[in-house]
Amino acid sequence: MKRDIDRLLAERNLNAAVVRGSTLDSPTVRYLTDGHKLEGVIILLRPGRPGVLIHNPMERDDAALTGMETALSTRWDLRSIANELHGDMLAAQAEQMRRILADYGVAGRVGFYGHGEIGQAHALLSKLEQTLTDVDVVVEFKDDLFTTARITKDEGEIAAMRDVAERANAVVAALAAMLSSRPVANGAKGSKAYLLAPDGQPLTVRYVKQFIHEQCVQQGLEQPGGNIFALGADAGVPHNQGNPDDRLELGKAIIFDFFPRPVGGGYFHDMTRTWCLGYAPKEVERAYQDTMSVFKLVMETLEVGNRTSAYQSITCKYYESLNYPTILTAPGTQVGYVHGLAHGLGLEIHEAPSFYAYEGNMAVVERGSVFTVEPGLYFPDKGYGVRIEDVVYCDEAGAFHSLTPFPKDLVLPVRK
Amino acid sequence: MKRDIDRLLAERNLNAAVVRGSTLDSPTVRYLTDGHKLEGVIILLRPGRPGVLIHNPMERDDAALTGMETALSTRWDLRSIANELHGDMLAAQAEQMRRILADYGVAGRVGFYGHGEIGQAHALLSKLEQTLTDVDVVVEFKDDLFTTARITKDEGEIAAMRDVAERANAVVAALAAMLSSRPVANGAKGSKAYLLAPDGQPLTVRYVKQFIHEQCVQQGLEQPGGNIFALGADAGVPHNQGNPDDRLELGKAIIFDFFPRPVGGGYFHDMTRTWCLGYAPKEVERAYQDTMSVFKLVMETLEVGNRTSAYQSITCKYYESLNYPTILTAPGTQVGYVHGLAHGLGLEIHEAPSFYAYEGNMAVVERGSVFTVEPGLYFPDKGYGVRIEDVVYCDEAGAFHSLTPFPKDLVLPVRK
Repeated sequence: MKRDIDRLLAERNLNAAVVRGSTLDSPTVRYLTDGHKLEGVIILLRPGRPGVLIHNPMERDDAALTGMETALSTRWDLRSIANELHGDMLAAQAEQMRRILADYGVAGRVGFYGHGEIGQAHALLSKLEQTLTDVDVVVEFKDDLFTTARITKDEGEIAAMRDVAERANAVVAALAAMLSSRPVANGAKGSKAYLLAPDGQPLTVRYVKQFIHEQCVQQGLEQPGGNIFALGADAGVPHNQGNPDDRLELGKAIIFDFFPRPVGGGYFHDMTRTWCLGYAPKEVERAYQDTMSVFKLVMETLEVGNRTSAYQSITCKYYESLNYPTILTAPGTQVGYVHGLAHGLGLEIHEAPSFYAYEGNMAVVERGSVFTVEPGLYFPDKGYGVRIEDVVYCDEAGAFHSLTPFPKDLVLPVRK
Repeated sequence: MKRDIDRLLAERNLNAAVVRGSTLDSPTVRYLTDGHKLEGVIILLRPGRPGVLIHNPMERDDAALTGMETALSTRWDLRSIANELHGDMLAAQAEQMRRILADYGVAGRVGFYGHGEIGQAHALLSKLEQTLTDVDVVVEFKDDLFTTARITKDEGEIAAMRDVAERANAVVAALAAMLSSRPVANGAKGSKAYLLAPDGQPLTVRYVKQFIHEQCVQQGLEQPGGNIFALGADAGVPHNQGNPDDRLELGKAIIFDFFPRPVGGGYFHDMTRTWCLGYAPKEVERAYQDTMSVFKLVMETLEVGNRTSAYQSITCKYYESLNYPTILTAPGTQVGYVHGLAHGLGLEIHEAPSFYAYEGNMAVVERGSVFTVEPGLYFPDKGYGVRIEDVVYCDEAGAFHSLTPFPKDLVLPVRK
């Protein structure tokens, strides 16, 4: 969490960290500025001192709201420097950085972070390496300072994550209630019964997506990554978002994966339910119960300090004991258990820690962390997939809490 | 535009371009994949051949929708490579890249593009420079291949930009109509009259923002960067988004800057109107007319092939002839004309070309380009600011068209 940043700087032997980017692009900039809208800022963090936010004068009101120490970027005016350097913008950006660090008396090891075009980043950091005489440019490839800080959430962050969880669960509840309330039409001979929309036409995935969108608006949520509402064979491909033209037929597996955040940005929720309308085919029922067993096994064995990758291994081994293929023994399989068990959640849908099992994944389960648990099985050729996903919070006492209370019944009742 | 990519590769003497990132993060990835949701892809472009999209198997259905040649990332499975390399993920990513390029027979000069964490990008590209023996790693700091390609829009892109323009203008029209329809309450002695909301309370900026949000939902628009609806002194700070508690008083300058895109991503519109409810104070009126004069002057003098920076200079000189301070003669001024005249518009709100005046800005006005024109004047201490902004399209014949038809009347009539 934010209060760990000084410790994390010290562990890395850094005299300062520089973060570049915009709140819209960079989760780290958003993290440090509490989400106030800022474009192209430079943030300077030094141990034991307030962070400095260097910003465009046009954004001085938003900058002031962050509570950080602020400075106008025009003090080191980029275009004036570019004019001094005959229009060489790369040299000008490097020179601007040099002047800022010099003016703040920063020397020695300095870490560089933030989000941007990768080619530009490489060009600028290479230039800084070549030209800064008092500063050692440090970059981190994995488990970097801010990725690490963001794994654990403070009280304010947990409150925000509980709030978005509540709103997300309300949307899912409203959708389930709507589906259960719709009339059912018998299919033509040999085809399945299906739900009807208010206009008397078959209720489609398009209708469902519009309903979810309207519920999100009511709850003040947005869905930057869309959502997954995938039926039958589509549910057998984990990230298939669903076919808008599909009608909602009874007895078909539906995967609904919902990952909204508050309008304007903030912390995400991420939950999945698998539903069969009216009844569940035996095979789907079995895969679902096996996945529920994995889900419970993981929830019961979660423990602070254990390697995250251990839970991926446990999941694979449990599924394999039931004769399902998994990516542990069949890397690249598209059938059976084909993805990671879990991922950290926060200002990004996928953030640290990773739960994948590979050599070098040293992540452990931490107090204060928030992550998903989401086992699933996929059989696109057999026309179904199942997945169950809750968000889990590990409190400071090391106890685990699901933030996703919506029930996990496979069968969603329909009107008789 | 996309059909220029082969020429742009050849101009840079590149045998291939590699683009890394996710559709959500990277406008270039979104550009090349037509917006289908994909996470952590690698795209390989070679002159005269279809682009190759290397993607996670979980996203194979979305990948297929792009129409690109596709390959599963598990063919070069990162975690398996990491296991071979004792968990060194940086070495594994570099090795994965090496294998991909080798398998596609790519050698010589290869450009690297995309969006990501800047430290990771620098670490990976430095590692590639050190380890790839057959490949020269090329990066571009400015005017890079995709920035350049994206300046000009093809027919499909123009259609999308006309569509979002129409929807954005409809929202602005609905807002203006709503404001004009509200009852007016007299202020207490010595204070201004103000609009009333349906609940009989003063109509506030909060109410306006909710109204805009609801109109956006109806039009299928989203506002990832929010919007600016700033009154009085707040309008004097260009990026101040407005104070939710402010009541809408008559005769106060309002800057409404609206920059939505279709829900789920796509091309932006970006327009600004300045309004005074009921009547305009003389001083605001004068600043507004002077800004209208600049706007018209720029629109009338736009010409293909001229430097974009020339129009920033023209704007500054015109304003200075009327005794307003500008950033040309007073860099860093917060009073008068304080920002750039214009910016390219597309999948990002601010993209190339830049219209800023500095040595090294070689951008020229191009056929097929879309950009804003947005002069403005700011007097926070006097309690007002004004700005006018349209989106302008330069067609293939070199004619300029505003895509922002909403009227530019300063005074918005109110109910008698």
